[in-house]
Amino acid sequence: MTINVLFAAHANRWAQYETPLRTALDAIGIDYTLGTDMAPETVDYIVYAPNSDVQDFTPYTRLKAVLNLWAGVEDAVGNPTLTVPFARMVDDEGLTQGMVEWVTGHTLRHHLGMDAHIVNPDHTWNAKAPPVSADRPVGILGLGELGTACGQALTGLGFPVTGWARSEKTIEGMTCLSGKDGLHDVLRQSQILILLLPRTPETENTLNRESLALLPEGAFIINPGRGPLIDDDALLEALDSGQVAHATLDVFRVEPLPKDHPFWAHPNVTVTPHIASETRPPSAARAIAENIRRGEAGEPFLYLVDRDAGY
Amino acid sequence: MTINVLFAAHANRWAQYETPLRTALDAIGIDYTLGTDMAPETVDYIVYAPNSDVQDFTPYTRLKAVLNLWAGVEDAVGNPTLTVPFARMVDDEGLTQGMVEWVTGHTLRHHLGMDAHIVNPDHTWNAKAPPVSADRPVGILGLGELGTACGQALTGLGFPVTGWARSEKTIEGMTCLSGKDGLHDVLRQSQILILLLPRTPETENTLNRESLALLPEGAFIINPGRGPLIDDDALLEALDSGQVAHATLDVFRVEPLPKDHPFWAHPNVTVTPHIASETRPPSAARAIAENIRRGEAGEPFLYLVDRDAGY
Repeated sequence: MTINVLFAAHANRWAQYETPLRTALDAIGIDYTLGTDMAPETVDYIVYAPNSDVQDFTPYTRLKAVLNLWAGVEDAVGNPTLTVPFARMVDDEGLTQGMVEWVTGHTLRHHLGMDAHIVNPDHTWNAKAPPVSADRPVGILGLGELGTACGQALTGLGFPVTGWARSEKTIEGMTCLSGKDGLHDVLRQSQILILLLPRTPETENTLNRESLALLPEGAFIINPGRGPLIDDDALLEALDSGQVAHATLDVFRVEPLPKDHPFWAHPNVTVTPHIASETRPPSAARAIAENIRRGEAGEPFLYLVDRDAGY
Repeated sequence: MTINVLFAAHANRWAQYETPLRTALDAIGIDYTLGTDMAPETVDYIVYAPNSDVQDFTPYTRLKAVLNLWAGVEDAVGNPTLTVPFARMVDDEGLTQGMVEWVTGHTLRHHLGMDAHIVNPDHTWNAKAPPVSADRPVGILGLGELGTACGQALTGLGFPVTGWARSEKTIEGMTCLSGKDGLHDVLRQSQILILLLPRTPETENTLNRESLALLPEGAFIINPGRGPLIDDDALLEALDSGQVAHATLDVFRVEPLPKDHPFWAHPNVTVTPHIASETRPPSAARAIAENIRRGEAGEPFLYLVDRDAGY
């Protein structure tokens, strides 16, 4: 029997994904049709982006699963018409690896004080070596796939890493804390703080006036997680006072970051354009094909969204 | 019996090293005196920097070894009065780890294209993700302690690393080449090339017009090794033509780099002030004390300089 796979994301994504998806679906050896236009009642699987035109899933009467192209699901998880299994993207090859590289690179950049050499208009030769990584405590808020992978890369380079998650975790080589007291402990010791929490009502404004004040003076903030994890005004105050030395931000409450947002012009903010964790089509297509294979074989889907937790 | 340890390096180093050296020598449990002024014929060991006032070792008639504070020995290895065992500094905790952090950080910086975000006066949101590390071939010239450690850190992050050394080597996870053909092969495939060769007559100008032309167009050069490994004029030409996209240089033929050297003003050169591999006093002092313990116990010294090879 032929299964019907609807691609429901922006048109420019179709150009990137059609060939990788056909390659990956061919490789799992099923009969399929793949397209961007199908009668809803014939669709078995939807390859989905939350900004798709498809917002009402009611007409998709034989739908078996919705397979998200993005890691983030917050713009779809509350959709009451989305009742079938809903999987977020976990693209270890592309998405997780990209995040590890971006986080490790910017952590080393701040640790080494690179910016003073990259931008050095007075041509100052100031031969002051940074401490070694063993003397630079790093904190990671959020210990999902991404936070765990980043923590492991950083411990591999010698950084003492303390991670925090809502629930208790154990990860080799890292100290893992949980709960409100644990959060305060992580903040108090993190010279470099990395935000990789999911976006939920509980995580909004995790970094606010009170929590920013707990950081060691001159700490660095790295946010490749979600824009709303930070109270922007509180961060700007902490940057102006020197409580935070620099913030490198990849995600924002509004994207692209509006031209008049003060982050752009602030000398101690680096804006990167939501590139830390970018799904790469070949590996993402393989992850989607694997879930379709599982659905057809009656095996459990990978990476299903927990609708109660919101991620 | 008390052994006499002369500290023969610049005075500002004495301020940094006296306490760590006493701590490390106390820990090995020998009787010693440590100072900067001793009758030469009473000295057992010299803790040394090649820019020391001590250049004639002839009066040091009972000297057992000279223990260098620096990894580089080229300014002392040719000294005909230095005939006792001469050990270079291998400070795995401080010096090697510092090099790994600097090299990994700048490799990720160029790989990720960070500079375009750190300096972005037009506030451009250009959401183009870099390739993953698996698609970014890195070459390392020189596979001593430093090159090997850097190669292992980079393969750990997913980069395909090809190393080159004068003699054949085998290092897990890396392709290792040797000989002239091997050098050409490494150059031809390295989008990021890291120089960690020792300074010898054979390695001078390893990067010259001919070898720079072998690199893939738009390659990145990272030199934390030795200034004379590069023909400066040839590098400037390659930068101007775009053959080399950017050079990040930590070492120079003259240091500090003279104010009028064109590297300072070149938009595609980053100068760092010889900080990639900086000996850290606590760990360096432990390495020196360990060699003194070995000397007194009749065990072979660690990290002896091969005077024929020149390093």
